[in-house]
Amino acid sequence: MVHKMRAVRKLGPGPGAQLIEVEVPGVGPHDILVQVTATSICGTDYHIFRWDPWSEGRVKPPLTLGHEFSGRVVEMGPEVHHLRTGDHVSAETHVTCGRCLACLTGQAHVCQETRILGVDRDGAFAEFVAIPAANAWVNDPDLAPELASIQEPLGNAVHTALAQPLVARSVLIMGCGPIGLMAVAVARQAGAQVVIAVDISAYRLRLARELGASEAIDATKGDPVARVRELTRGSGVDVLLEMSGHPTGISQGLRALRPGGEASLLGLPSAPFRVDWGNEIVLKGLTLRGITGRRIFETWHQVRALLRAGLELSPLITHRLPLERFAEGMNLIASGRCGKVILYP
Amino acid sequence: MVHKMRAVRKLGPGPGAQLIEVEVPGVGPHDILVQVTATSICGTDYHIFRWDPWSEGRVKPPLTLGHEFSGRVVEMGPEVHHLRTGDHVSAETHVTCGRCLACLTGQAHVCQETRILGVDRDGAFAEFVAIPAANAWVNDPDLAPELASIQEPLGNAVHTALAQPLVARSVLIMGCGPIGLMAVAVARQAGAQVVIAVDISAYRLRLARELGASEAIDATKGDPVARVRELTRGSGVDVLLEMSGHPTGISQGLRALRPGGEASLLGLPSAPFRVDWGNEIVLKGLTLRGITGRRIFETWHQVRALLRAGLELSPLITHRLPLERFAEGMNLIASGRCGKVILYP
Amino acid sequence: MVHKMRAVRKLGPGPGAQLIEVEVPGVGPHDILVQVTATSICGTDYHIFRWDPWSEGRVKPPLTLGHEFSGRVVEMGPEVHHLRTGDHVSAETHVTCGRCLACLTGQAHVCQETRILGVDRDGAFAEFVAIPAANAWVNDPDLAPELASIQEPLGNAVHTALAQPLVARSVLIMGCGPIGLMAVAVARQAGAQVVIAVDISAYRLRLARELGASEAIDATKGDPVARVRELTRGSGVDVLLEMSGHPTGISQGLRALRPGGEASLLGLPSAPFRVDWGNEIVLKGLTLRGITGRRIFETWHQVRALLRAGLELSPLITHRLPLERFAEGMNLIASGRCGKVILYP
Amino acid sequence: MVHKMRAVRKLGPGPGAQLIEVEVPGVGPHDILVQVTATSICGTDYHIFRWDPWSEGRVKPPLTLGHEFSGRVVEMGPEVHHLRTGDHVSAETHVTCGRCLACLTGQAHVCQETRILGVDRDGAFAEFVAIPAANAWVNDPDLAPELASIQEPLGNAVHTALAQPLVARSVLIMGCGPIGLMAVAVARQAGAQVVIAVDISAYRLRLARELGASEAIDATKGDPVARVRELTRGSGVDVLLEMSGHPTGISQGLRALRPGGEASLLGLPSAPFRVDWGNEIVLKGLTLRGITGRRIFETWHQVRALLRAGLELSPLITHRLPLERFAEGMNLIASGRCGKVILYP
Repeated sequence: MVHKMRAVRKLGPGPGAQLIEVEVPGVGPHDILVQVTATSICGTDYHIFRWDPWSEGRVKPPLTLGHEFSGRVVEMGPEVHHLRTGDHVSAETHVTCGRCLACLTGQAHVCQETRILGVDRDGAFAEFVAIPAANAWVNDPDLAPELASIQEPLGNAVHTALAQPLVARSVLIMGCGPIGLMAVAVARQAGAQVVIAVDISAYRLRLARELGASEAIDATKGDPVARVRELTRGSGVDVLLEMSGHPTGISQGLRALRPGGEASLLGLPSAPFRVDWGNEIVLKGLTLRGITGRRIFETWHQVRALLRAGLELSPLITHRLPLERFAEGMNLIASGRCGKVILYP
Repeated sequence: MVHKMRAVRKLGPGPGAQLIEVEVPGVGPHDILVQVTATSICGTDYHIFRWDPWSEGRVKPPLTLGHEFSGRVVEMGPEVHHLRTGDHVSAETHVTCGRCLACLTGQAHVCQETRILGVDRDGAFAEFVAIPAANAWVNDPDLAPELASIQEPLGNAVHTALAQPLVARSVLIMGCGPIGLMAVAVARQAGAQVVIAVDISAYRLRLARELGASEAIDATKGDPVARVRELTRGSGVDVLLEMSGHPTGISQGLRALRPGGEASLLGLPSAPFRVDWGNEIVLKGLTLRGITGRRIFETWHQVRALLRAGLELSPLITHRLPLERFAEGMNLIASGRCGKVILYP
Repeated sequence: MVHKMRAVRKLGPGPGAQLIEVEVPGVGPHDILVQVTATSICGTDYHIFRWDPWSEGRVKPPLTLGHEFSGRVVEMGPEVHHLRTGDHVSAETHVTCGRCLACLTGQAHVCQETRILGVDRDGAFAEFVAIPAANAWVNDPDLAPELASIQEPLGNAVHTALAQPLVARSVLIMGCGPIGLMAVAVARQAGAQVVIAVDISAYRLRLARELGASEAIDATKGDPVARVRELTRGSGVDVLLEMSGHPTGISQGLRALRPGGEASLLGLPSAPFRVDWGNEIVLKGLTLRGITGRRIFETWHQVRALLRAGLELSPLITHRLPLERFAEGMNLIASGRCGKVILYP
Repeated sequence: MVHKMRAVRKLGPGPGAQLIEVEVPGVGPHDILVQVTATSICGTDYHIFRWDPWSEGRVKPPLTLGHEFSGRVVEMGPEVHHLRTGDHVSAETHVTCGRCLACLTGQAHVCQETRILGVDRDGAFAEFVAIPAANAWVNDPDLAPELASIQEPLGNAVHTALAQPLVARSVLIMGCGPIGLMAVAVARQAGAQVVIAVDISAYRLRLARELGASEAIDATKGDPVARVRELTRGSGVDVLLEMSGHPTGISQGLRALRPGGEASLLGLPSAPFRVDWGNEIVLKGLTLRGITGRRIFETWHQVRALLRAGLELSPLITHRLPLERFAEGMNLIASGRCGKVILYP
């Protein structure tokens, strides 16, 4: 058994992180140790890397970054009975309390005691990661490690997209970051009549088209609300998947919805902003659903089923780097000229 | 057949209205003429009476005001077959187009071509009112005319309250205007575990208690959010019925909801305002439903069933006046020291 | 204006029908007259043609048969305002009362006063058919007449299939008559993980594969329940679409469902039969939904959206005949060696 | 610490049971030991006591009977952290596997690996019972031990009743055994417009009236379906709660439902029986839901909320006996002349 490993650690408050050698994490009675095969960079990892105000308020270094990954089980605590050494696993990255009202009534994704891998406890930008066995998700043996790694954000996309029926409906996806792009592919597979994607990056809009968008609107060139109305014969879309987290995008999304429409909201604005609550929400009779995390494990089963049915995400994986080039990966995220960036330990 | 009647009319732009003698309205082939037995004043009537900015933009005088009423069918157009002269009726006051996507798919309450009695066409503060037969609702013969008249706003309360399950759940009603007060009684009858009412008027909070609130919180005396948490053992309420339309009330209501909670939004703010979208809606995984009008006629059937089952609203009817004292009624609405005010033509 | 037309009529009780010349139907104030472009044969038409016990109890000859069709509006009653001469239309074939509880609360498909075209009033196996304007559905101008005609049974398939979510779920379609075959295509488009079709006809199973079934099981060759379990790694399917109406098929379908599964039931057994209610429904915690007709007009909008999105049904239209060869069409239906049979007046 | 206790045990196959002295059960690392304060007799206990064919196939003596109970925590395994000695607890009696599809997706109540207290492992007709800590439900401190004990069957009633909205709807409860009677009280509290109870026992119908039934119909005196139609102005009820498990009751219940109605099915017939599937389920567009167990722990939260809100069940607890008179309790169950029978160890 090895005792040392390489890990991308933030060693103290402030920007940056370092690849250093540390102890392989120990394994508690209900935990497993996973040898990481592939890990992918999330926007949150970048926020912590550059040490934004949210990170400053939440993260307590030293900390190993990263939470999206896949790997092999190499060690199990004595109370773990449903897994086997060698299992190909990924992880639900939200470690919930298991005892609160939310956890006991099928809403663990809103547990207020949630601790997140790579945010509140050591994460997966490393050769090994220790997780509670209850958080492990056993992958199909033949699932590619890169796809297995991005199941976690794909779960966000699936949770958002499938929070309402999409079949035979017009769907607007506002914001084409990686999760928005995944939502494009999911909405297409879910039988949406049309999938309209909006962003301000030509790079991302090209990816949206490759992933199945019927129409990709550049919001810097004309009013996307007017264009959505044209595309829906004047009525507006049935469903909005709000992935931008930007006040302008949110407002445009609400205005582009038809009366009686439904919206799932995943994007997080950085601050409060003005909303035309009466005209855009109440009088239109909209239904809005705030989305966070993944339903545990309903969403994971849906993710597995979509992948088994052939969900095509390969255009989304744009960069593959060895772990030591993590900083290059962070720069790619900062540039916006990427889909998912995979790191190999 | 009489040819003249008294009606409360706004004769031109600007504040006020007059009781004058006018022609009894004519009846088209699909219409009915109703002799009004009781009519009640809505906040909207008062907005038009005092000529607020919304009225100025929408209302085209001359116009007979009023839309909540009950009465007897006295005349029917030749194409009307399902009613009988003498029927005790009230009316769905939204005259919808019948042809749009919303109308054809069970969402006529969000029809964008809706014309409203007493707003867009002559209303019910009169001895007679003509309505499309399709909008008539035949009351139980023994339903008191006053209760029959207030079924329309009661429908708003029922639509709002029953948009999610209330049984065995904690319910917060933010804002105790007449519709909020009705929602208190409805939530109580629907089996809510607790019904917490919030307002800033001691008069209205007393009515809330009489109508069944478990707790009536005066928002001018301490933080209602903290008090709601106390009453729910720290967790927050399961359901919010937002009836205040006030930015502060809306914000408090959202904060008082538990993670994963649900809100129905009926109150209309007078302008856009700042919302902490990320923390209060998205990350909490809330479901919000904008509510307008009544489901046609699902809500009316629910209203009927609740009344048949003994829904107790009598404390709410605080004033009864002859039609000629309509201005006094308007002043009562302005004062806030009333429940529903009934006018008798 | 022509006054005479050819129509396939049942002139009295007993088997058979005749193509004769009759008056073109008159048009009431709320009706339209449609020149039929294409009409398709339903199993119900064949039941009436051969005069089965159900027909004997319900149908009152003389009667023009047929209800699935598309055509052009050629005349309109004076109260019809939302259509235009020349419109390319199909029809919701259930003429509902419009006044009962079901009709007034969004469930017109279960109206007990429903009168059906070609069953209770003259139908569409003719050069012209008169229908209430409220039942007309305006087609996209470029929709092929044959596809426009089969939208009515497609609506049955869509109503059945979309009564529960199918995306990312395993779906069993029991019975591959034309509506079952349509459901195969719909389930595929709706994002089902796998679509398993069961029938006893090799001809129909071949069509099921062409329309997108992942697996087509011949129930005459081994136990379909065992095969479904194999295909679902032992768990059973998430969703059953029961299209067989056969006691054996229904029982197999229920047994093939996983605990907690959902079923939509469209198939009509010819008589009561024994059900293992406790073990197959109650203890498994199943949800069953009886399906009849189409949601008016929610289902029609879904049908339109699916067709616009490219739902591929062409393998299903296996035969095209001139109206005078209707008896040949009936024989095809009797043989089971056909998909949909189109007649051209 | 005591080491011996009295327990009602079935020592071998065949009718009957004995009160004997046995070892107090040991406590595994994730278990707790509860000193039983009150325990109540379920129909299932009686089936095992008299050794019916179902028991013969499932139960492996020796076994301590009983599963409904309340008591105090007296010992906890080393891995139990969320409870405290002295806690007033009841138990979810279904010990589920925690790993199957159902358990991982919020449907543990249909886990096929469920082991039930007093059926598959030693139960609660004893001074002490050991249960997994994960199955413990901490009661409000002031909840009476008898009410705390009957929460388990009350959970069945609540799961059945609240599987669809009841507020403002007409509800038929077919079968007034203890769980049916509980459902009467729950439906009343949930705001049902009318609650119609049907049974063949005058004793039970009297209890139904005491618990809030608007109407209690003796099915031995005339046709209950006809009577239900009368009470619902010809339309039939909106909701059926099927608690009889009797083919006649089930058939009457389905016929008494209005088109488009909903039914929750808890009653278990002893054998398959003939169902008019086409006319009674499919063509009426019914929704049927098989119900088993309780949603873990959604239903328990609902039970708690209903009890906190004052659900009145005291008429239901008709007999209170010391544990040694358990055989007398079994005879009461056999006679049908009882509500719930409580045993005190």
